[in-house]
Amino acid sequence: MKLLLILATVLCLNTAIAAPALMPLPAHADYPPGELRIDNSFRVVNHGYTDQRLARAIQRFTASLSRQTGIPFIGPASESQLTLECAAPSPAYPALGEDESYKLQISGAGAHLTAPTTTGAMRGLETLLQLAGPGEHGMRFPAVEIDDRPRFPWRGLMLDVSRHWMPLPVVLRNLDAMAAVKLNVFHWHLSDDQGFRVESKLFPKLQRKGSDGLFYTQDEVRLAVEYARDRGIRVIPEFDVPGHTTSWFAAYPELASAPGTYSIERTWGIFKPTIDPSRETTYVFLDSLFGEMAGLFPDPVFHIGGDEVEDTQWKESAAIQQFQKRHALKDSQALHAWFNTRLQEILKRYGKTLMGWDEVLDPGLAPGAIIQSWRGADSLAEAAHKGYRGVLSAGYYLDHLLPASQHYAVDPFDGATATLGPGEAALILGAEACMWDEYTTEETVDSRVWPRMAAIAERFWSPKDVKDVSSMYVRLPAITRLLEFTGIQHRANYLPMLDRLAGWRDASALMTLADSVEALGITGRRDERKYSSPIPLNRLVDAARPESEPMWTLGRAVQAWIATRAPEDAALLNRTFAAWKVNPDQLRVLAKGNAMLDEVLPISDNLAATARIAVEAMSMLQSSRQPSEGWLEASRQSLDRYEKPKAETRLAAVRPVRLLLDAFTRPETSASEANH
Amino acid sequence: MKLLLILATVLCLNTAIAAPALMPLPAHADYPPGELRIDNSFRVVNHGYTDQRLARAIQRFTASLSRQTGIPFIGPASESQLTLECAAPSPAYPALGEDESYKLQISGAGAHLTAPTTTGAMRGLETLLQLAGPGEHGMRFPAVEIDDRPRFPWRGLMLDVSRHWMPLPVVLRNLDAMAAVKLNVFHWHLSDDQGFRVESKLFPKLQRKGSDGLFYTQDEVRLAVEYARDRGIRVIPEFDVPGHTTSWFAAYPELASAPGTYSIERTWGIFKPTIDPSRETTYVFLDSLFGEMAGLFPDPVFHIGGDEVEDTQWKESAAIQQFQKRHALKDSQALHAWFNTRLQEILKRYGKTLMGWDEVLDPGLAPGAIIQSWRGADSLAEAAHKGYRGVLSAGYYLDHLLPASQHYAVDPFDGATATLGPGEAALILGAEACMWDEYTTEETVDSRVWPRMAAIAERFWSPKDVKDVSSMYVRLPAITRLLEFTGIQHRANYLPMLDRLAGWRDASALMTLADSVEALGITGRRDERKYSSPIPLNRLVDAARPESEPMWTLGRAVQAWIATRAPEDAALLNRTFAAWKVNPDQLRVLAKGNAMLDEVLPISDNLAATARIAVEAMSMLQSSRQPSEGWLEASRQSLDRYEKPKAETRLAAVRPVRLLLDAFTRPETSASEANH
Repeated sequence: MKLLLILATVLCLNTAIAAPALMPLPAHADYPPGELRIDNSFRVVNHGYTDQRLARAIQRFTASLSRQTGIPFIGPASESQLTLECAAPSPAYPALGEDESYKLQISGAGAHLTAPTTTGAMRGLETLLQLAGPGEHGMRFPAVEIDDRPRFPWRGLMLDVSRHWMPLPVVLRNLDAMAAVKLNVFHWHLSDDQGFRVESKLFPKLQRKGSDGLFYTQDEVRLAVEYARDRGIRVIPEFDVPGHTTSWFAAYPELASAPGTYSIERTWGIFKPTIDPSRETTYVFLDSLFGEMAGLFPDPVFHIGGDEVEDTQWKESAAIQQFQKRHALKDSQALHAWFNTRLQEILKRYGKTLMGWDEVLDPGLAPGAIIQSWRGADSLAEAAHKGYRGVLSAGYYLDHLLPASQHYAVDPFDGATATLGPGEAALILGAEACMWDEYTTEETVDSRVWPRMAAIAERFWSPKDVKDVSSMYVRLPAITRLLEFTGIQHRANYLPMLDRLAGWRDASALMTLADSVEALGITGRRDERKYSSPIPLNRLVDAARPESEPMWTLGRAVQAWIATRAPEDAALLNRTFAAWKVNPDQLRVLAKGNAMLDEVLPISDNLAATARIAVEAMSMLQSSRQPSEGWLEASRQSLDRYEKPKAETRLAAVRPVRLLLDAFTRPETSASEANH
Repeated sequence: MKLLLILATVLCLNTAIAAPALMPLPAHADYPPGELRIDNSFRVVNHGYTDQRLARAIQRFTASLSRQTGIPFIGPASESQLTLECAAPSPAYPALGEDESYKLQISGAGAHLTAPTTTGAMRGLETLLQLAGPGEHGMRFPAVEIDDRPRFPWRGLMLDVSRHWMPLPVVLRNLDAMAAVKLNVFHWHLSDDQGFRVESKLFPKLQRKGSDGLFYTQDEVRLAVEYARDRGIRVIPEFDVPGHTTSWFAAYPELASAPGTYSIERTWGIFKPTIDPSRETTYVFLDSLFGEMAGLFPDPVFHIGGDEVEDTQWKESAAIQQFQKRHALKDSQALHAWFNTRLQEILKRYGKTLMGWDEVLDPGLAPGAIIQSWRGADSLAEAAHKGYRGVLSAGYYLDHLLPASQHYAVDPFDGATATLGPGEAALILGAEACMWDEYTTEETVDSRVWPRMAAIAERFWSPKDVKDVSSMYVRLPAITRLLEFTGIQHRANYLPMLDRLAGWRDASALMTLADSVEALGITGRRDERKYSSPIPLNRLVDAARPESEPMWTLGRAVQAWIATRAPEDAALLNRTFAAWKVNPDQLRVLAKGNAMLDEVLPISDNLAATARIAVEAMSMLQSSRQPSEGWLEASRQSLDRYEKPKAETRLAAVRPVRLLLDAFTRPETSASEANH
């Protein structure tokens, strides 16, 4: 039975264009037969409410559809059209919990998109873009009946622009990609020990001394906020205090809890410099700065970080210790809470709600505050019990470079939150994926966020019962490719990085290797070298993807071959393994006189060795010979050894080969279980 | 002997990083041993004259070097540095014949760039960028001694933005790539039958009715001119009159030689609508318009087109015929000359020199005019005899999609120009490649210009005796890859276009096919379909390159294998041919339910058949068997048949296989002769 299921899935993948690869999956969708042709006469006709923002969204949609299909819409208008009926405007600035629903009907007669709000209409337009593609008669939308709305009102991506600087175009193209998968919160982590990234006109030393000259001007911030607003995306600024503030002290050492001079932090970790919460001048400064920043960011939520407060400086300062006693603050945590209370008062005057990481959850926190949890559901449940709202980020840390499946399996209502009553459950607003950028540059960040972010976006938008990992992985390759047309460079930067490593020579052999490995995330890298900001991130690990689609595809082919022994699958596998076998010879030629490739050669040797095991296994399976226990055991051990981290990568090629070995003992392997 | 030569070249390609892949090659260059390491402490130190433009050029250089090497330059400054000594400023706006020379010395101790002018310094910085790459100890510049200056003062690229609209970013990124290969003239073909592409404030109907809303605002024009100026590139605007003006008449029909209403031309060719040269109001209009445009473009040269004047409207107009008699103009050519004389007077008042295509070369043309020849050296020689300056474009038409070698072989001093005396020869200013865009969109234009433009740029810059085609082809692959870092999308757009054709599924099989074909140019396409502006250019032919690097590489591998029978070459060939053999099966799976791939399948069948011939030939060569004459003849005929245009592509895969067949009769094949 299981075998038949696999077979069905495999055949479905290999033979026809299946149900549309939508991500996130709509709340309700039917796919009746039929299609709407897309040709140069295609037009959008808006019958309902309209405003500037919707008009721009329609323009963007038309331009994107043209780019994605390659069709210029300058023919005479015809029947082939999209009718849009939008009932009413959304709030001018995207609001928490606003109606984002829409209905979409497509048949041969036309496409009809109806939505109660302009934001709903924009979400529907993104669904349309994912539907467009080649069909039996040319470019077309398949017929659909969709009734869609989000599960959570807070669906976010946090981007750290402090550890490595991310210029404005990175932000803008990520906003476009976010819109494509219906995310609606961009959390901008703007300051940390390694850089203060916004222009302050009141305290220009902040960016002058705290950013290496790498910061957003206020005009750029306004542009990004407007760009996000246009796409129905809120922008939450984060200024992380009182810890993570070394870069502030490079400009204003008097804010620190210990005297001295400070310079921008170049390494990664938790550092001692911390804002002095005992001096009134601190609050005068923060009042001015937050006031200025509050004017720059229209969102009512203002994120003050508050994570990982290192209290050494507090404990070593007599003045701070005295202050603590005077205010009967029993420990550093109480002092931190006192500090947050003061911030909350300041923010309140600017009409802002405080948001912070788990650590800000303390007695004294005013109602309405929002807790973002990097620790897990327990924190959120605790916050909800106390009446605070929460956003889950634990389980969605993109910088760990985990497979999409692992993030996809995490639900904001798993664990302690699962037992909340309806009132408290409503306080869980949603979730946010986090991209911390210690090991990421503007060149690599897109490939660290996408396409895995799309799978996570499905968790945030689609109904709770949408959790079939196989289905997600069948749709992800199409979404990866569709996302290219948003301008995101997760695929575009791959080959140039390999070309660079290959010294501008043909990098095919290097790509064979890069396709067969996966990059390790922060936990796999931080102890391998003495990393710091000036260390180049231009090695194989940086080009390699967090999750290898080619190895996933190969795993599917192995399963298909095991199930059916079709000669064409065998041919594909043989060709792949043959390429692996000769990879070391090819790479040695390329690596001559090129030190950048030295560390790559041992991985290539392991790849070739993996291929030899694969070929032997296939040959035995082909002739129904059973290997000796010794061979099987030795082979498994070899694969385990080859899979061990090397040059901060993991040899993903061993996974499909393990499936071959498993076939000797467990011929019916399920795709979703075994391939990750 | 020949065999040894091939062998040497092949080995050089396959084993070590050879002499730097500079393009254009410098006038004089030595490559002593040694290198200068590039690490995060690398800095540029400017000791000589400096100004804003040079300062920006240095900033761009540093950013490009960082992008290209992946190294952030934020470490502490060290010994590893570039010392720049520039003697004096270049003219504020790039001038014809300005000094562009520079000297570059690199050793382990540092890099020294000296130049008499800021423009020379900028040219030298581009050479440095081409030198940077991985070496034995990491990223480095190899040691060099370069003394360089251009052969011609006019080295241009013409871009047609009328047939298909090319948005501003296309122009800007092409300016960056032009700077990378030391081109210095951007000729902007701004109006034609299919669109008038610049905002006129005096005649706004021109862009409103003559451009489908697709035009450059005056601010955008100023930005592009400034962008070019910053890179030492002149911008020559072309407003093509009196023919090629249908789009003008969509706005101002009263300018035409025949009454009626006109609309933007949607098809390609030579059309009848022509400006009426007999009415004084025509010159009032042109005086105002050219006056406005003269203010927008600082260059002293103003291109008025003048090509392909279709005189039907003139002949059919009684008024024009009368006018012709009154002025004793014996034919349409004389009338055209009279028109040009009037334009020349107008332009003179605005301080502009007239430039035009061959057809403007007529008695009455004032001295100083510049002739751009699409017809060939005869026109230029004739112009020079009459004292006019000339620029060659015949032989450099990129839209024909010919191999780089064919353009590379064309020299401005071949043919009639070769016999000019020194005085007249000095009137040949240089040359311009032309990109006409009937079959090119913003998505494909970069791949139609680059990398072939780099080879042509070498013809324009390097000494006349630099003409070794093999050397050019050995360097071109590196230049192609380096150009990626200028932002040009000649490689980046390839995969997304294939992904689109494959319906967002794994396009590897389609890429195997696309790598083995070449796109036909204008002469191969115009009679195949009824083309017009709304026809999508999103097929295999549009994704395919004008010249296949993979097939060139395969040809080299075939030659290497024939020469040495090395098993690793055999393995590469076998793997390639194996992939070709199964290509039809793979593509048939992909093509199911996807009409976009229908036309691709027969080509894939031919590819598989080509592989079968290749495998047989290799097998016979391997065992030193001689094939029957019949087999050889039949195989050759088959290859000829497979090579015939199909779906507007040519099967380039037959070329390396022909080399295999040649080995039976002519074992010593020269690379440069046989591979194209």
